[in-house]
Amino acid sequence: MPQTIDTFIAENQDRFLDELREFLRIPSISTLAEHRPDVERAARFVAGSLERAGLESVEVIPTGGHPLVYADWLHAPGRPTVLCYGHYDVQPPDPLEEWQTPPFEPSLRDGNLYARGSSDDKGQMYMHIKAVEALRAVNGGGLPLNLKFLIEGEEEVGGASISRYVAENPDKLRADVALVSDTGMYAEGLPTLCVGLRGLVYAEIEASGPARDLHSGLYGGVAPNAVYGLVQLLAKAKNSQGVIQIPGIYDDVEPPAPAEKESWERLPFSEKEFLRKEVGSTRLVGEPGRSVLERVWARPTFEVHGIAGGFTGAGAKTVIPAKATAKVSIRLVPRQNPGKVVEGLRDFVRTKGARGVQYEVRILSASPGILVDPEHKAIQTAARVFSEVFGRPTVFIRSGGSIPIVGEFAGRLGIPTVLMGFGLPDDGLHSPNEKFRVENFYKGIRTVGRFFEQYGQA
Amino acid sequence: MPQTIDTFIAENQDRFLDELREFLRIPSISTLAEHRPDVERAARFVAGSLERAGLESVEVIPTGGHPLVYADWLHAPGRPTVLCYGHYDVQPPDPLEEWQTPPFEPSLRDGNLYARGSSDDKGQMYMHIKAVEALRAVNGGGLPLNLKFLIEGEEEVGGASISRYVAENPDKLRADVALVSDTGMYAEGLPTLCVGLRGLVYAEIEASGPARDLHSGLYGGVAPNAVYGLVQLLAKAKNSQGVIQIPGIYDDVEPPAPAEKESWERLPFSEKEFLRKEVGSTRLVGEPGRSVLERVWARPTFEVHGIAGGFTGAGAKTVIPAKATAKVSIRLVPRQNPGKVVEGLRDFVRTKGARGVQYEVRILSASPGILVDPEHKAIQTAARVFSEVFGRPTVFIRSGGSIPIVGEFAGRLGIPTVLMGFGLPDDGLHSPNEKFRVENFYKGIRTVGRFFEQYGQA
Repeated sequence: MPQTIDTFIAENQDRFLDELREFLRIPSISTLAEHRPDVERAARFVAGSLERAGLESVEVIPTGGHPLVYADWLHAPGRPTVLCYGHYDVQPPDPLEEWQTPPFEPSLRDGNLYARGSSDDKGQMYMHIKAVEALRAVNGGGLPLNLKFLIEGEEEVGGASISRYVAENPDKLRADVALVSDTGMYAEGLPTLCVGLRGLVYAEIEASGPARDLHSGLYGGVAPNAVYGLVQLLAKAKNSQGVIQIPGIYDDVEPPAPAEKESWERLPFSEKEFLRKEVGSTRLVGEPGRSVLERVWARPTFEVHGIAGGFTGAGAKTVIPAKATAKVSIRLVPRQNPGKVVEGLRDFVRTKGARGVQYEVRILSASPGILVDPEHKAIQTAARVFSEVFGRPTVFIRSGGSIPIVGEFAGRLGIPTVLMGFGLPDDGLHSPNEKFRVENFYKGIRTVGRFFEQYGQA
Repeated sequence: MPQTIDTFIAENQDRFLDELREFLRIPSISTLAEHRPDVERAARFVAGSLERAGLESVEVIPTGGHPLVYADWLHAPGRPTVLCYGHYDVQPPDPLEEWQTPPFEPSLRDGNLYARGSSDDKGQMYMHIKAVEALRAVNGGGLPLNLKFLIEGEEEVGGASISRYVAENPDKLRADVALVSDTGMYAEGLPTLCVGLRGLVYAEIEASGPARDLHSGLYGGVAPNAVYGLVQLLAKAKNSQGVIQIPGIYDDVEPPAPAEKESWERLPFSEKEFLRKEVGSTRLVGEPGRSVLERVWARPTFEVHGIAGGFTGAGAKTVIPAKATAKVSIRLVPRQNPGKVVEGLRDFVRTKGARGVQYEVRILSASPGILVDPEHKAIQTAARVFSEVFGRPTVFIRSGGSIPIVGEFAGRLGIPTVLMGFGLPDDGLHSPNEKFRVENFYKGIRTVGRFFEQYGQA
């Protein structure tokens, strides 16, 4: 029996997993300066893996931030070109004490590999590389299509370097379609293509009250309090029902098409299970009169990600704090203009602040939401091979998350992106005990390999 | 010329200052567990100082928290007894980077001694001890009245141990009046007695949203956010004018008597100067229609002292935080019942919280406000000697701060307290660059010494 990519993958699966574990041991936390050497180590690991898989022109490209890794294989003239994207950086692991096993010591339990980055995105990105290795192994070293890889190390911090690189190198990156595996399956075993993403405006807001921390006994009642001024401002960003109060925020929000909305209603979704298993709170919140999926996929949101100010040690200290800072974001849906939303946020801070408190807004990133045409040939091929490997019809969903690079590929290169993700809803992205289902790692390699085969022949 | 306490103090002033510097070098931060050995060292320093000044029965008394220091001199039968109180613990020095010289390395600049605790309260408490030393030196080892000292190490963390000790040892502590130097002069050179203090209810409020930190892309719009839930709750505690919205908070608040209010209006006070030099913000805040002094001295306040939750490192992390905590306090005016205010706060949290967020309230301390009769003999004596030393009539003011022990002395021992303070408005209590005017240190020793002399003969 001739070897297929499926048999090659089955024979090499333990080695593939060992390699991934080695990759996951590198704490490539892009947002923390002290991990810069780890981030660089992760970039070199990716470059080495691409080279061993048979990719060519492998480069670790220095940037103002973290390095990009590029590679290609361009020996299939007349065949389409796929631009494979992924990121090797990860979110910080805190709160550390909530991890059952250390975040950078991958641990196999119940068919899952637990580690920071296992699902987002090292595990998924590595599947693309292993798919190339498998395809070449069964094709005598050749590939049925042209491939370019562009892997970044700043996805979790806004992706400024890749954004600049894509803008400056459209010819080098020219392709027919991009492939990104940085999303999830709608449910275990249910092949899923994501055709919509939210954009993101991320900002820090700093409030300043008195010139220095003051004694709350001696000045309480007359001195402005920076923490309270920040609290008062942020509380005005949403009403009690969760409707955002930032000027113009809903102006360009289009409701999902009726057909799309109907298909969402057919998805297996239990609000009760979602609340209990995924969210783990007493109830869900958000805009009234809209379904959970609509709220998460097709509505803008305002969130406070962190807040700090004043005395937060053990015990009591009676200060009126001079400074306080919050990290906030607004998720955008397709057709909202990030620049306009930034202006709305600045307007809001300018007009809604508390008396006696000064505010500064620092925008850390701003990217638009995206919608992909489900009739595109690459999407149709991806849906078919996904169904073949998992044995069920592929569903089309959106994601509430943001992958800014997908917007760059559309805007700068004029290409759509196949968002073919293998994560699961309970993978715990950005949370303690992040995991990746080992079965999905293997099936993902098979699916990506078949996508390369069939899209190359299409 | 016979030696007087004034000449003795003048001759020994450099030694007194050196001793105070040694005391200030001990970082006795009562709220931080890692400084427990320093707090104990400070207690032993106080005990040694009392012994060297000629006090007897010196004890370092272990408690569930930080030690108390007791001493007495009881050889003046028929004469009154004064209970001297002070505290040897200090506030944490953070933010450290704002200190011009290290907080625990006393530095003399422009006639001020800069160090954490220089004014609050090591410098002031040490004056009492030096006054005893001076008096004994010029009286052949005797004293014109009976003295008891009770010095605590938990004033900055709620004073639970001394509260229990006073309740359990009323006979041991029996006295005619208490003397406390832990307040300030209204203005430089203006002798000031404080006859009113605000009480304090200090609490931590913890908010819980989802079971773990969640990805804000995947759950933003439906999952409750603990930080935002805390922000929403806290913002409801005051309206935009600064009027507290906690149920019943103003029920028992009495306006100051017309005569007292008029005397406040005669005090040298410039709102502009106060704003510019002391507060250092763009404007003052607080309840409309009430003067600054009334707001600070005779109105309850609600303040947030610190807040923490979610991701607060450098850069961007898009989590929906599971937990957030704030430290808050309510200052009480005389006649407000701390227990009733605590109930009001709990009610407020129970009824005003955001949907989907759970709240826990932990009360760290609760003490009432206090008013002292300005006609009391000890107050009148104190006013007279204060005027003599500083050469100006003594003014009677209130303080917006809280000295819970004054309430305990009133409630448990049935005695009034002379609040004779020598700090200045710009001393920076609880702030970076706390200082104490060296001249006030010396004049304070003289004033306290004269108070002992004249009250003993009264």
